[in-house]
Amino acid sequence: MPDAVVSPGSAEEVSEIVRFCRSEGIPIVPRGSGTNLSAGTTPTAGGVVLLFNRMNQILEIDEENLTVTVQPGVITKDLIDAVEMRGLFYPPDPSSMKISTIGGNISENSGGLRGLKYGVTKDYVLGLEAVMPDGSVIKTGGKLAKDVAGYDLTKLLTGAEGTLGVITEATLKLIPMPSSKKTMLAQFAAMDQAAEAVSAIIANRIIPATLEFMDRATIRAVEDFAKVGLPLEAEAILLIEQDGAEAAVNDEMQLMKEICEKQGAFSVELAKTAEEANNLMTARRSALSALARLKPTTILEDATVPRSKVAEMVEAITKIAVKHQVTICTFGHAGDGNLHPTCITDARITEEMHRVEAAFEEIFKEAIRLGGTITGEHGVGEMKAPYLEWKLGASGINVMKLIKQSLDPDNIMNPNKIFGKSEKKRVVVGK
Amino acid sequence: MPDAVVSPGSAEEVSEIVRFCRSEGIPIVPRGSGTNLSAGTTPTAGGVVLLFNRMNQILEIDEENLTVTVQPGVITKDLIDAVEMRGLFYPPDPSSMKISTIGGNISENSGGLRGLKYGVTKDYVLGLEAVMPDGSVIKTGGKLAKDVAGYDLTKLLTGAEGTLGVITEATLKLIPMPSSKKTMLAQFAAMDQAAEAVSAIIANRIIPATLEFMDRATIRAVEDFAKVGLPLEAEAILLIEQDGAEAAVNDEMQLMKEICEKQGAFSVELAKTAEEANNLMTARRSALSALARLKPTTILEDATVPRSKVAEMVEAITKIAVKHQVTICTFGHAGDGNLHPTCITDARITEEMHRVEAAFEEIFKEAIRLGGTITGEHGVGEMKAPYLEWKLGASGINVMKLIKQSLDPDNIMNPNKIFGKSEKKRVVVGK
Repeated sequence: MPDAVVSPGSAEEVSEIVRFCRSEGIPIVPRGSGTNLSAGTTPTAGGVVLLFNRMNQILEIDEENLTVTVQPGVITKDLIDAVEMRGLFYPPDPSSMKISTIGGNISENSGGLRGLKYGVTKDYVLGLEAVMPDGSVIKTGGKLAKDVAGYDLTKLLTGAEGTLGVITEATLKLIPMPSSKKTMLAQFAAMDQAAEAVSAIIANRIIPATLEFMDRATIRAVEDFAKVGLPLEAEAILLIEQDGAEAAVNDEMQLMKEICEKQGAFSVELAKTAEEANNLMTARRSALSALARLKPTTILEDATVPRSKVAEMVEAITKIAVKHQVTICTFGHAGDGNLHPTCITDARITEEMHRVEAAFEEIFKEAIRLGGTITGEHGVGEMKAPYLEWKLGASGINVMKLIKQSLDPDNIMNPNKIFGKSEKKRVVVGK
Repeated sequence: MPDAVVSPGSAEEVSEIVRFCRSEGIPIVPRGSGTNLSAGTTPTAGGVVLLFNRMNQILEIDEENLTVTVQPGVITKDLIDAVEMRGLFYPPDPSSMKISTIGGNISENSGGLRGLKYGVTKDYVLGLEAVMPDGSVIKTGGKLAKDVAGYDLTKLLTGAEGTLGVITEATLKLIPMPSSKKTMLAQFAAMDQAAEAVSAIIANRIIPATLEFMDRATIRAVEDFAKVGLPLEAEAILLIEQDGAEAAVNDEMQLMKEICEKQGAFSVELAKTAEEANNLMTARRSALSALARLKPTTILEDATVPRSKVAEMVEAITKIAVKHQVTICTFGHAGDGNLHPTCITDARITEEMHRVEAAFEEIFKEAIRLGGTITGEHGVGEMKAPYLEWKLGASGINVMKLIKQSLDPDNIMNPNKIFGKSEKKRVVVGK
């Protein structure tokens, strides 16, 4: 629990709060809707939680420059809907987009289902207004496709998880809405077939808008939750979406269908209506909620590997789960190598939690060994802080700590995040 | 002149050099081919210039993950040619690409003619190996579309102009080669018509691969230099390229043709052959070389504005040139608002140089006033350092200086760059 919760109404108010907290040595935790999955906005050092429910306006949609300027508290889905009404497209679509805020998305550099083709939040942040730990207000970037005036503070603050400053306004890039979109569901009798199909699609120089993977356990949980008619007999499915000019979309969907069939898919079907397509995507987005219903504790990770290693990683996860006798369901953004192995467990059973912990350590190690990372889109937060050095090495961590200390010498901005105590375990067991 | 020039052969050698220089307080200037236009690699504080002519290998083209891994000394065009032979596409194409190195492109975050649709170098840098000012070697990112493991050091080092570390290896993103490409030349009897056509194209939700602008003086100089048949009677031309699926390219080229005609173009013609198209693009890339032949001194800037302000900015440049009685030719990447007002002058004429200086100050001020920046793609270097605060404010500069000091406390990495002495003038007059 925080010591206080404050809802500022402007950058000036944020600046006053930051100056006060700094002079008193009080931690500040900027928080959107708290949908991050890494304990990134949990006030474990106490202090003030900053909410942005009063700073939730879309300030401008600029149709000439294809930008939108927003306050941090805008709900992601509201932003997406508002620009789509003008025929414009904001691609980053974290699964939590109905609840998450854009400020949270920026601080966590959120990904989503369309990351493979369209990139992640960072690729759409053109400019920021931020309150730095000394209370100064800076403006970075602008409505500019090119800007090399000094270090890229826009990208440094994006994904910094609130540890370097408080984002108070953002200008985001929009693109024209693709004129056509098709959705397809491919069913496989074996997980490795689905994973190989992913590699084969990319090797054929097709970059689909979405290329999602779900294993059998996830399919069953999602179907039970969302009831959209997912195939319960499949071991794995791929949910494929492509957008663009109609003729090209049709050609590529046909080619991907053939590739899936060649890799052993026993059924590949196009969604017949936009509603059916939408239901499939919504069902996929509900995967975490669906799995979370199965057991008291859900631990979802996002170990990410080069896309050519997806098959190998999926296989490794399966073996690790068997070895440690834990239940791990895997789904995720197969096209960009961003998998979400999810352990459904019970934090009250101490002995099981130790096995879960051991399993995830092995998963992280395997991801790193395959050229991957410990987190693709969920952030380091506190949950992954103990493992960050595995990815970055001592030198990499040192560089990041120097930056943190230079900008926030009193460590008031979201302390305990990113830089963990090495002995810390991710899960408090036995509670 | 530097005190020494060193050509290391590996990251380990770079590390040894950096450690030695740091212990002795010797400046280090990493330098590719020196094609930057901001005195970014000029060793004005003396010291050691690091060359990368021995680290010039393409290490791997990974067709499964669509990445290329290179040493910094690879020539940009060689990289582009090597991946195009495999049907892959590396979009950043600075005009200097036949000479420039990829390490230089990364350090300067180079743009180019395809920035509007495809972004700049930064958008393609997935991972780096770099030697930091303390001699430590770090690895950032990887062959990953998603990676949020800590601060984005990849993007921080990209565009840092060698002031934070030395890049020794890079993994770059590739995309599939578009299946079709068309090129078109539109001629206008007035500059503002061309500028309005740019706005109208974007407002019609078309994002062409290239949308280049040249004024009359530039056209004449380029034609005299390149002899590709540019229209000497036009006041301004737009060079338009679109790529993608063939049907979509044809539709959009037709629509852009109509838009240009509606804005007053007196001629809009498609290039008939790939060779003709290539000649047009090559001619455009030679603009700086062509203009540089006209007078002893050429000062080229890249004030950049939101694309909706291109017409206003072009008009302002014309007025400023008249006011100060200097010759400014303007060309550039109109589609992304990145203009290159170029003054052809003579540095030996002190009085004229003061007028040139005054004119560029006004151009920078106008760019900032229109929501733009002092440099879109050429970097700050030493030339634009005096003006950086206009864009960033004192708070923004302060944040950047804190980062610089934290990573390079002895200021050995490319000193005098980005952070200028405020009283410094950009041009040494009377020499």
